[in-house]
Amino acid sequence: MIMASIKEVLLHEVQPLERPPAAKVTVVGVGQVGMACAYSILQQGLIGELALVDCVEDKLKGELMDLQHGLAFTRPATIKASTDYAVTAGSHICVITAGCRQREGETRLSLVQRNVEIFSDIVPKLVKYSPHTLLLVVSNPVDVLTYVTWKLSGLPAERVIGSGTNLDSARFRFLLGEQLNLAPSNCHGWIVGEHGDSSVAVWSGVNVAGVTLSTLGPAAIEGELKWEEQIHRKVIESAYDIIKLKGYTSWAIGLSVMHIVQGALHNRRHVYALSTNCRGIHGIDADVFLSLPCVLGSHGITHVVKQNLNEVEVLQLQKSAKQLHEIQQSLKL
Amino acid sequence: MIMASIKEVLLHEVQPLERPPAAKVTVVGVGQVGMACAYSILQQGLIGELALVDCVEDKLKGELMDLQHGLAFTRPATIKASTDYAVTAGSHICVITAGCRQREGETRLSLVQRNVEIFSDIVPKLVKYSPHTLLLVVSNPVDVLTYVTWKLSGLPAERVIGSGTNLDSARFRFLLGEQLNLAPSNCHGWIVGEHGDSSVAVWSGVNVAGVTLSTLGPAAIEGELKWEEQIHRKVIESAYDIIKLKGYTSWAIGLSVMHIVQGALHNRRHVYALSTNCRGIHGIDADVFLSLPCVLGSHGITHVVKQNLNEVEVLQLQKSAKQLHEIQQSLKL
Amino acid sequence: MIMASIKEVLLHEVQPLERPPAAKVTVVGVGQVGMACAYSILQQGLIGELALVDCVEDKLKGELMDLQHGLAFTRPATIKASTDYAVTAGSHICVITAGCRQREGETRLSLVQRNVEIFSDIVPKLVKYSPHTLLLVVSNPVDVLTYVTWKLSGLPAERVIGSGTNLDSARFRFLLGEQLNLAPSNCHGWIVGEHGDSSVAVWSGVNVAGVTLSTLGPAAIEGELKWEEQIHRKVIESAYDIIKLKGYTSWAIGLSVMHIVQGALHNRRHVYALSTNCRGIHGIDADVFLSLPCVLGSHGITHVVKQNLNEVEVLQLQKSAKQLHEIQQSLKL
Amino acid sequence: MIMASIKEVLLHEVQPLERPPAAKVTVVGVGQVGMACAYSILQQGLIGELALVDCVEDKLKGELMDLQHGLAFTRPATIKASTDYAVTAGSHICVITAGCRQREGETRLSLVQRNVEIFSDIVPKLVKYSPHTLLLVVSNPVDVLTYVTWKLSGLPAERVIGSGTNLDSARFRFLLGEQLNLAPSNCHGWIVGEHGDSSVAVWSGVNVAGVTLSTLGPAAIEGELKWEEQIHRKVIESAYDIIKLKGYTSWAIGLSVMHIVQGALHNRRHVYALSTNCRGIHGIDADVFLSLPCVLGSHGITHVVKQNLNEVEVLQLQKSAKQLHEIQQSLKL
Repeated sequence: MIMASIKEVLLHEVQPLERPPAAKVTVVGVGQVGMACAYSILQQGLIGELALVDCVEDKLKGELMDLQHGLAFTRPATIKASTDYAVTAGSHICVITAGCRQREGETRLSLVQRNVEIFSDIVPKLVKYSPHTLLLVVSNPVDVLTYVTWKLSGLPAERVIGSGTNLDSARFRFLLGEQLNLAPSNCHGWIVGEHGDSSVAVWSGVNVAGVTLSTLGPAAIEGELKWEEQIHRKVIESAYDIIKLKGYTSWAIGLSVMHIVQGALHNRRHVYALSTNCRGIHGIDADVFLSLPCVLGSHGITHVVKQNLNEVEVLQLQKSAKQLHEIQQSLKL
Repeated sequence: MIMASIKEVLLHEVQPLERPPAAKVTVVGVGQVGMACAYSILQQGLIGELALVDCVEDKLKGELMDLQHGLAFTRPATIKASTDYAVTAGSHICVITAGCRQREGETRLSLVQRNVEIFSDIVPKLVKYSPHTLLLVVSNPVDVLTYVTWKLSGLPAERVIGSGTNLDSARFRFLLGEQLNLAPSNCHGWIVGEHGDSSVAVWSGVNVAGVTLSTLGPAAIEGELKWEEQIHRKVIESAYDIIKLKGYTSWAIGLSVMHIVQGALHNRRHVYALSTNCRGIHGIDADVFLSLPCVLGSHGITHVVKQNLNEVEVLQLQKSAKQLHEIQQSLKL
Repeated sequence: MIMASIKEVLLHEVQPLERPPAAKVTVVGVGQVGMACAYSILQQGLIGELALVDCVEDKLKGELMDLQHGLAFTRPATIKASTDYAVTAGSHICVITAGCRQREGETRLSLVQRNVEIFSDIVPKLVKYSPHTLLLVVSNPVDVLTYVTWKLSGLPAERVIGSGTNLDSARFRFLLGEQLNLAPSNCHGWIVGEHGDSSVAVWSGVNVAGVTLSTLGPAAIEGELKWEEQIHRKVIESAYDIIKLKGYTSWAIGLSVMHIVQGALHNRRHVYALSTNCRGIHGIDADVFLSLPCVLGSHGITHVVKQNLNEVEVLQLQKSAKQLHEIQQSLKL
Repeated sequence: MIMASIKEVLLHEVQPLERPPAAKVTVVGVGQVGMACAYSILQQGLIGELALVDCVEDKLKGELMDLQHGLAFTRPATIKASTDYAVTAGSHICVITAGCRQREGETRLSLVQRNVEIFSDIVPKLVKYSPHTLLLVVSNPVDVLTYVTWKLSGLPAERVIGSGTNLDSARFRFLLGEQLNLAPSNCHGWIVGEHGDSSVAVWSGVNVAGVTLSTLGPAAIEGELKWEEQIHRKVIESAYDIIKLKGYTSWAIGLSVMHIVQGALHNRRHVYALSTNCRGIHGIDADVFLSLPCVLGSHGITHVVKQNLNEVEVLQLQKSAKQLHEIQQSLKL
C-alpha cells in the first residue's frame, strides 16, 4: 500500500503507539439519542477516544464515518465503532441508550422484560472490558433499567447512574426562564423522583437569585396552587409533545448526557438530578432507583442532597418506589 | 396569568426589552442537515439568537422545543421558530438547507428546477427581512443552487456562498490523517471544483508539517498515480456510502457549516473551500459557482486563493463550469 | 515591499475589506487587571475584534504583540492597540480598568477625585467613538466610579455598569463550595451592596440544590450567627490577602469580567451582581450605584431582582448609599 | 466547626471521596509564564485537577486564591498549591516554568549551571510522585534544560519535551497572516532548531491553502532573499521587543503550552515544533535536544516529521547541535 511508504519517508518513529490513557467514553446504541449524545460529547472536546457500539452494523458504520468526517472542524478525538465490545475497553464512562420501544398494547412490564434481555447481553460485556467504568443508563424506563443494570453489573451502586430527571429539571428551568424572561441557568428548580408522569416538582426549592418564589406572598401562594398546571404539567407533557411533533426526542437529552459525562470525567462535584439507589432516603426501604439531587465525582455519586420535601412529595416518592419495587420483583434477571 | 404576578413581585424593570444586536443566525429547513447545523452552532456558544424556519409546522415546533430544553446545559441563546420569515429579521447569516430530494428516474435538471421553485419562495423573503445577511447555501446540488440563490437574491456575489467542497476537503484530511496516523488538522489538502463526483483533488498542494507529499520521491510519485483510487475516490464515495449505510449525512456537514458560520461571524479571515462565482478565475468566463479556497470575512468572501493547478485540474474545472452553465441556461428563474 | 507582491500573486481580490460588524470589545488600561480581562475574553472566542487603549505606549505595544503571537493557538480575532481612542470605534462593550492607586496616607476622597480626572479624559472619548456601547467599570472604588462614569457619559443608567460584587459573590460561592466539597456553581449565594468592606451577604438566599441553608434547623441557625466570621469575613479579607500575598488581584476579576461581557454580547439575560443606579430600590432615594442582582441583556441592565432583605441588610445598604452620596457631592465633575 | 454540621444535615454520604482519575496537570513555577499557562489550561476546561508548585510560599498562596475565586465563572476544576511536591502526585503532565534569570554580565554557561541546580531539586521529585508523567520544559534556555531534565529524570526521551519553537512558529504564522491579511491558522510555516537567535525558518515549507510560496515565481524568489529580514528576523526579535516593552513574555507562551497540553492529554496526534532528542536525525549524532515537528500522543512524542531541509538549514541545525553538545559537556549533572 502506497501510503505506508509515504509514511515511512515522512515520519521518523520514536516510540511505538500505545493505548491512550486519555479520557474514553463509550456510547451503546446509535439511534437518535445515542448519536445526539456522541455528537455533543465530541463537540465539547472532552475526550480522547469515543467508542460506539450497536448491533446494526450498517447504521453503526455510517454514523462512524459521518462523525469522523467532521473531526477536521472540532478538537479531534479518536472515534471507533464495532459490534464487538472489545472496542469499548478501558472506558471511563459507558452511556447506554440501547433498548426496544413499546409495542402497541404492550404492558410496561413486558417492555421492561424485553429490555432486561437486551441489557443482559450489553452490561456484562461493558463491565468485562472496563471494570472501573461508570455506567450511565439513558434508555427508558430509566429508573427500573438503572436498577437492572446495577444488578447485572455487580458494580457498587454509586457507579451505576440513570440520567433520570436531569432533563426534566432542565425543561422546568427553561419553562420558568421563559416565563420570567431570564436565562435558565438562573432559574433554580428540581424535578425529582420517577422520570416521567409521576415525577415530583419540589416547589419549596424553586428560587431565582436567592429569592425563594414560595415566599413572595399571595401572588406566589396562588402560584403554588397553579404550579402543577403551569410548569410541572408542561414538563411532563414535553416529552409526549415532542414525540408527537417530531417522532422522538434527541437534542436536549444529548446535551443532558454530555453535561453529566463532563461532570464525572473532570470530577466536578456538580449536583445533578440522577437516578440512584434510594434505599435509606426519604423513608424508602428497598433497592429502587429514583432521581434525587446527587453529587457526582469521577468515581460516581458521592452524596445525595437531603431536600426538605413536604408530606405530599414524600408520599409521591414512596408510591413510585413501591411501584418500581413491584415491577422489579416480577422481572426475570 | 399567575407567573406575570410573580414576575412583577420579583423583578424591578429598568428598561423595556429591545431587539438584541447580538449575532443572529437563521437556519432554513429543519431536516437532518439543518438540525445538525443548528445543534452545532448552538453548542459552540457563537450566537445570541437562532431562528429556525420550515414549512412543516409540527416538525418545526418539535425541533424548537427539543433544542430549547437543552439550553440549561450550554451557553444559552434565544431560539425562535416559525413558518413566517418575520422570525428571521436581522440575521447576520442565513443557512439554507431546504430543498427536495431526487425522485427515482428524475433527471438532474428536473430536480434543480423543482428546487428553483422552492428557492424562489425562500430567498426573497430572507433578503427582505435581513438585507445585510450573508446567504450560505447547503442544499444540493449546491453549486447550481448557489448560483440560483445569487440570482434570486440580488445580493453582490461575495455575500452568496455555497458550502461546496469544504466538507469534501475535511473528508480528504480525515482519510489522509487516518493513513498517516496524524490529526486531520495537520494534513493539509484541498478538494476544489464541483461538489460531488467531478471534484478536483489538488495533489500538488497536499502537505504535512511543511512537507509537500509530491516531493517525497519515487514512493510518492507512485502515490500520485494511485492517489485517485486511494483517497480522492474514497472522498467521493463517502457521501454515497453514508447515505447507503444510515440514509443521509448530517454530523459532518453540520460541523462544516458551524465552522463557516463561526469564521464569518467573527471576521476570522480563514480560508475555506467555498462555492463562489468563478468568472475570471482559472479561465472560466461565465457566472458559475464552483468551490475554490476563499478568504471569508464578516461581509462575505474577500479573496480567492490562486492555486497552481495543473492542466488536467484546470480542464476538469472548466468542464464542470461548462456543464453547470448549460444547466443554468435551461432553468426558468 | 515584497510581501505585497506575494499577496498579489497568491490572492484574487473579490471585494475590498470593510469594517467588521462582528462583536467588538475595548479594554481601557493594560495593567494586570485589564490584561487578565483581555486574555480571558480572547480565549473564550467571543469576539471578532479586541481594542486595547492605554496611555503608556511601550507597555501597550508589548501587551499587544504578546497577545497577537498567541492567536495561532486560539479562535482568532483581530487585536488592535493604540493610545488614540479612534481604535475603539464601534465597540459593543468598553471595559474600563484604568485608574490610579491609593497613595500612602491619601484619603479616599482624594483618590476618587484623582480618578475622576482620569475618567474625565477616558469616558467622553469612548462615548464619542462608540455611542451605542455599554460601559463596564472595573476600576476601584467601583461604585462611585460607576456613578462618575454615568455622569460623564451622558448615557442612560442601564448602559453604565460596575463589575461590583460579581466577584465577591464568586468568592463566596467558592468558599461555600470548598466547605461543602461541591462545585461552586451549585452553591448559590449573593453578596450585594458596596464592593468591599461594607458589602452585604444575603444569608436568607443561600441555597444548595433547592435547600435554603437557613432552614436547616439549629445547626444552621447557629450557622447564621457564625456566618459573618466563617464565609463573609473571608470574602472581604480575600482581596486584602491576595494583594498582600501576590501584590494585586487579576485572574478572578478577569474571569468575572469575561463572564459579564459574554452575557451582554449574547443577550443571555443572566443575573449578575452588578453596580447599578439604586434610586427607588430598597428605600434608596438618591442616584447612587450599588450592586444588586441585575438581569443583563445586550442593551444593558433590564431588571433588578427584588431580594427579600432583612432589616439589618437594608440598613447596611442605606448606610452605604448615604456615604457614597456624600462622596459624590464632594466631587468636582 | 459549624459548616461541618450543615454538611451533615444537607448531604447523605454514598461513598467516601477518593483520588480523582481525571486529567491532572502540574505547573512548577508561578511567575508570569507559569501563571499564564495555568490560567489558560483552566479556562479551556481540559482538566480535573491543577497543582501549582513553587518555593515562594506567599506568592504561591496568593496565586492559588486568585485562580480559585474564578472557578465559579468557568468549567470548575480542583486547584491545589504547595511547596511540597506531594501535591503533584498522579500528574499526567508536569509543566516546568521555574528557573533563574540571567544576571548582568553572566555567561550563558553559568546561567545554565545555576538552573541545573534548581532542576536537580525539581525533576526527581516530579518523577517520584508521578512516574508515568510527561515532562514539558518551558524554562530557558529551553533546549539544554530539556536535555538536563531528560538526564535528571531517567525517563525515556519521548516523555521529556521542550516547548521549543512552538511559539516561534506561532509568531511566524501571525506575522505572515498579518502581511497577507489571513487567519494565522491558514498560514503554514515552521521554525525549527534552537529556540532563539539560531532558529531555522523552513522557507521551502511555507504555504497557504496548498500554495507553496516559494513556487510563486520571481516575486517570491526575491521574497526568499528578503525572507530573513521580513519575517524570520522579526520572529527572533519579538521576544526581545516584548521584554523591552513590557518586561517579560507571558500570554503567547501560556497559550502555546495550553495547546501542547491539550494535544497530549487527548492523544490528538497533532504535530508541534517541540524540542526533542535529535540523535539520528538530520545528521546529528549526539544526544542534543532541538525543535523539530513532532507528533504528540498521550505517551509523548511518537514520530518526528522528516522535513526536506536545504543544505544551509541542515548546517545551521548541526551547528546548534554542536554548541549545545559543548555546553552539555561542561555541565555538572
